Amino acid sequence: MKVGIIGAGRIGKVHAKNIAALVPQLEIKTIADPYMNEETEAFARSLGIPNAVKDAEAILKDPEIEAVLICSSTNTHADFIIRAAAEGKHIFCEKPIDYDIQRVRQAIAAAKNAGVKLQIGFCRRFDHNHRAVYDMVRSGKVGKVNLIKISSRDPEPPPISYVKVSGGIFYDMMIHDFDMARFLAGSEVEEVSAVGSVLVDPAIGEAGDVDTAVVTLRFANGAIGIIDNSRKAVYGYDQRVEVFGSEGAALNANDTPSTAVFYGADGTVSESCYKIMWDRYTGAFVSEMRAFAKAVSENLEPSVTGDDGLYPVLMAAAAAKSLKENRPVRISEVS
Amino acid sequence: MKVGIIGAGRIGKVHAKNIAALVPQLEIKTIADPYMNEETEAFARSLGIPNAVKDAEAILKDPEIEAVLICSSTNTHADFIIRAAAEGKHIFCEKPIDYDIQRVRQAIAAAKNAGVKLQIGFCRRFDHNHRAVYDMVRSGKVGKVNLIKISSRDPEPPPISYVKVSGGIFYDMMIHDFDMARFLAGSEVEEVSAVGSVLVDPAIGEAGDVDTAVVTLRFANGAIGIIDNSRKAVYGYDQRVEVFGSEGAALNANDTPSTAVFYGADGTVSESCYKIMWDRYTGAFVSEMRAFAKAVSENLEPSVTGDDGLYPVLMAAAAAKSLKENRPVRISEVS
Amino acid sequence: MKVGIIGAGRIGKVHAKNIAALVPQLEIKTIADPYMNEETEAFARSLGIPNAVKDAEAILKDPEIEAVLICSSTNTHADFIIRAAAEGKHIFCEKPIDYDIQRVRQAIAAAKNAGVKLQIGFCRRFDHNHRAVYDMVRSGKVGKVNLIKISSRDPEPPPISYVKVSGGIFYDMMIHDFDMARFLAGSEVEEVSAVGSVLVDPAIGEAGDVDTAVVTLRFANGAIGIIDNSRKAVYGYDQRVEVFGSEGAALNANDTPSTAVFYGADGTVSESCYKIMWDRYTGAFVSEMRAFAKAVSENLEPSVTGDDGLYPVLMAAAAAKSLKENRPVRISEVS
Amino acid sequence: MKVGIIGAGRIGKVHAKNIAALVPQLEIKTIADPYMNEETEAFARSLGIPNAVKDAEAILKDPEIEAVLICSSTNTHADFIIRAAAEGKHIFCEKPIDYDIQRVRQAIAAAKNAGVKLQIGFCRRFDHNHRAVYDMVRSGKVGKVNLIKISSRDPEPPPISYVKVSGGIFYDMMIHDFDMARFLAGSEVEEVSAVGSVLVDPAIGEAGDVDTAVVTLRFANGAIGIIDNSRKAVYGYDQRVEVFGSEGAALNANDTPSTAVFYGADGTVSESCYKIMWDRYTGAFVSEMRAFAKAVSENLEPSVTGDDGLYPVLMAAAAAKSLKENRPVRISEVS
Repeated sequence: MKVGIIGAGRIGKVHAKNIAALVPQLEIKTIADPYMNEETEAFARSLGIPNAVKDAEAILKDPEIEAVLICSSTNTHADFIIRAAAEGKHIFCEKPIDYDIQRVRQAIAAAKNAGVKLQIGFCRRFDHNHRAVYDMVRSGKVGKVNLIKISSRDPEPPPISYVKVSGGIFYDMMIHDFDMARFLAGSEVEEVSAVGSVLVDPAIGEAGDVDTAVVTLRFANGAIGIIDNSRKAVYGYDQRVEVFGSEGAALNANDTPSTAVFYGADGTVSESCYKIMWDRYTGAFVSEMRAFAKAVSENLEPSVTGDDGLYPVLMAAAAAKSLKENRPVRISEVS
Repeated sequence: MKVGIIGAGRIGKVHAKNIAALVPQLEIKTIADPYMNEETEAFARSLGIPNAVKDAEAILKDPEIEAVLICSSTNTHADFIIRAAAEGKHIFCEKPIDYDIQRVRQAIAAAKNAGVKLQIGFCRRFDHNHRAVYDMVRSGKVGKVNLIKISSRDPEPPPISYVKVSGGIFYDMMIHDFDMARFLAGSEVEEVSAVGSVLVDPAIGEAGDVDTAVVTLRFANGAIGIIDNSRKAVYGYDQRVEVFGSEGAALNANDTPSTAVFYGADGTVSESCYKIMWDRYTGAFVSEMRAFAKAVSENLEPSVTGDDGLYPVLMAAAAAKSLKENRPVRISEVS
Repeated sequence: MKVGIIGAGRIGKVHAKNIAALVPQLEIKTIADPYMNEETEAFARSLGIPNAVKDAEAILKDPEIEAVLICSSTNTHADFIIRAAAEGKHIFCEKPIDYDIQRVRQAIAAAKNAGVKLQIGFCRRFDHNHRAVYDMVRSGKVGKVNLIKISSRDPEPPPISYVKVSGGIFYDMMIHDFDMARFLAGSEVEEVSAVGSVLVDPAIGEAGDVDTAVVTLRFANGAIGIIDNSRKAVYGYDQRVEVFGSEGAALNANDTPSTAVFYGADGTVSESCYKIMWDRYTGAFVSEMRAFAKAVSENLEPSVTGDDGLYPVLMAAAAAKSLKENRPVRISEVS
Repeated sequence: MKVGIIGAGRIGKVHAKNIAALVPQLEIKTIADPYMNEETEAFARSLGIPNAVKDAEAILKDPEIEAVLICSSTNTHADFIIRAAAEGKHIFCEKPIDYDIQRVRQAIAAAKNAGVKLQIGFCRRFDHNHRAVYDMVRSGKVGKVNLIKISSRDPEPPPISYVKVSGGIFYDMMIHDFDMARFLAGSEVEEVSAVGSVLVDPAIGEAGDVDTAVVTLRFANGAIGIIDNSRKAVYGYDQRVEVFGSEGAALNANDTPSTAVFYGADGTVSESCYKIMWDRYTGAFVSEMRAFAKAVSENLEPSVTGDDGLYPVLMAAAAAKSLKENRPVRISEVS
């Protein structure tokens, strides 16, 4: 099956490489980026991608291309989904679909009405460690879910220029954790309470955002969720989840480059977390692409649906409102 | 130095045994309990305690006794503090001082005015694992504190009869975690948000309490705290703390009876947490008693002061109010 | 650079897939196997390998092919090395080169004289966990090496038919650990003492081999090594190394599919080791192939030389003799 | 039951304190030491021990004393056992009984003939971590035992003066591990192979000993054992055991002062092992004394018998001979 990739930034290139090497069902025919340059052309050639172009329309209008990967900037996601749906192409779209909930709904509706598959790029669902906790929960080992705890801390804050346009920490960072919370709980969130501080970099505060945030979630089934985010953990990419229930608790530890340990006079030292997201989630990016290939080629419901793309945006909107108004906000208030 | 113990229930007996065996500076002269019986008398004899009586006044009026341990039921704590202070005796009092904030203040004032030492029984401050995290924080290793996370889950809920009079989960259980949060943060809490559910036993809900609770704390220095409590963790006494800061994170794992591990065909199995509080905090009870002996005999400020007894009660009051009104509550609202 | 693969069994196919997907410097032109069949031809086509043939001479005589991978049965390794060297081709050869020490020496000499690269397939040197211990040792963290301990246990014994021809546990299994011991120690072994028992399957004993073996090594620098092997560990592929020295100890834990843990009423359960070698050493096979590509294309000494192929065979010969004669055997006795 | 302690050195004092505080069945009437001084007298008084004397005969001849603890120097153990047995007193004796096998046999025979209990001070059998592995083995979880591995490394070598008279590393250090190997295996050792080096301090070599030693054991049931010892591990008291069998493996990790961990930019750091033996085996010393009190007061076979005192000495003798002659030595050769 021939696919096109819209957007040749970091994540577009990661998907391109993974597909070329490890997803034999998919064949990349075209990669498009408005800033297409020689380097990216060389990159495309090295992977055997025949066409490297500027205009995404070359993909959208190509009748041979059956599926597109939307890896462009967030503000273009909804439009490309709508365009791709109109052309009858299956869609893998990076998260979030949009910051505007109406736009998200329109995009999802477009895909639904066109009868094309839409998979959202919540890659962490495919991570081996998170998936193992999920499997324990789904197998019933944990029993009834009472509490969900998610820690998610990045090694470094993004550039301030990004913070200004990203929609803020709830939209550009905690969105992953909102999705993970739903994924693990198997229940919808009804109410959100957010607390936030500027503790990492005052410039983030000046840009109107917080860099340290805690959100409490009430699920429909009575379970409670807690998410903490920090823009800066000096020890690397800290990503842990915990699900506590009536029969036990399932939790994971961070991934490290090796299991090696040093017993020294001053302590026992093991490796820090990965410092780079692409190293941490190497396998997850491959797995989500294989899942997309499988969903499209076998006509299955994608493992991360359009609705899975909508709810985290609702939660982000509620969290932002909660932080601003310093009160719990119901999802129904922002829907 | 001669001491008297008021209250010969479980905790009074633990302190008695520890002092007799492991705290040579203190000598128990009298143990008093309104329900004094033959069994407790035999217990006292076995430890070489000369007097086992019903009336605490036998202790309070004994000029030879320099310090008292108040291990009676919570509703008597404040009165006994005031009485002991009036008699010029140093005081170790189990937590909480009282559920009524004015009573707490009166008791603290009484001790202060009488110039006697008052140490509150927040034993977890003396636990080796929590203390090790505290030491990392105080040494500066963690840098500026940004986040504090505390999990505290009991193996079994208390009897419903106890839930009805205990003041609820915030007063009888999370009170320890409120103290721990302040201890680790080195900053006061300004605002509290509580979420709670009845997920363990409907009878707890009928008694007007919740059995699963999450509280978010805002500290004066901008740091954020999260505490989660559950009345029932089938795997035992789950007590973990984490402090995340600008230079790293300090956290601990649960204590287990041994480090032994079994590599089996179906998984690698290590021991569960302790299932009994007295096993989990064996060392902490000894250490807090040694600290009290030291504070009294060397005329030092106790390591857990009367004010340390007040603040967690304020936090519990704020949490209870927050849960009821479903909004953040400032400590100043309940002071 | 064009390469040919001799032998399309399990390991030949693993290398073929890895090269096709992840080693862009190498291009497989031909794969040869005397038992070439339709399935293997289809496999070759799926990877874009133009030629799938029966006779290895099609590779050895092809002037366009610059390097060969020898993945055939052990008894053919030395011959193919000699033939490939004669044709001036660089060589990657699976371990061991041969059971016969003179044949090993001839093969190594052939490669040396022809001036071609020869890399031996001791893949564990490229494993992330073993490499991390190696790096700690080489960095000087461990100080002077005093002790080396290696555990290596397989999930299941090989078929008895294989045991009969493999040369026995020292040649077909511990050979990896002999290499690892030298790799970690940075010193040569001078004397070997072996102890062995038949504890897993009496049929192994009837075939003239042991299934449980411990070998003690004396290194030239005074360090001592210990290797234990078992043909059957029900919990999977158990592969741990430890290096103890004057400044500390470096050791690793087994790899597991995830870091997930379950806190249950009966214990804390984490995942068992991998049960399949190809899963355990996925990354190592890729890394050794990349190292070979690099050594050949940049004209570097291979990271596992012909001599590195010789010494483990000497150690195996000494171990076999030690087990038979129940005495320490010096390497010089078998050289 | 009244007891006397012969020898008021470090270990005698540890037992005295433990009995006084934590073993209510035993009451120390007399402590004897040829170097009795004011400090030790004060120590005795502080524990409420009525008599502190120079001559052990004051204990041995005291009809009120029913049991003695022999904590004097090793060369006096056998004599005191024989004397105490003659006086009909139960005996707890520190390990080893003697370096001379005939003396050991005589002492054991004396106790047997007198019908008194004799417990040997192999305290590690009572350690929580080692005991937990033992329990797994005895419960059948591990299945048939195939391999036993013991690491035992001390933080610092003893003074050279001690090395010269201690009998060497096999008698003063590995003796504990010889006992542990038998304890875990539940089978007797038939043959011993030793390898040793001087890697820590040349002065140890000049004193005729080695400081790094590995011993391989063959058990009667076919199982194989490995013990490694080093006189110096900079990271503290390294004591780990592993039992591998047909159904899995049981192993333990070192004890550390706390479970606290620091996630720092340069690695994840947890606590080193204990650096002092008395801290590492605090609980084991108490437990062995409780076991002795129980055996004596309830007329039970002691958990570490006289024969358990004999076999490790035989193993040490075989190991010393094996090291000297560089060949495996059967236990029957030294019995």
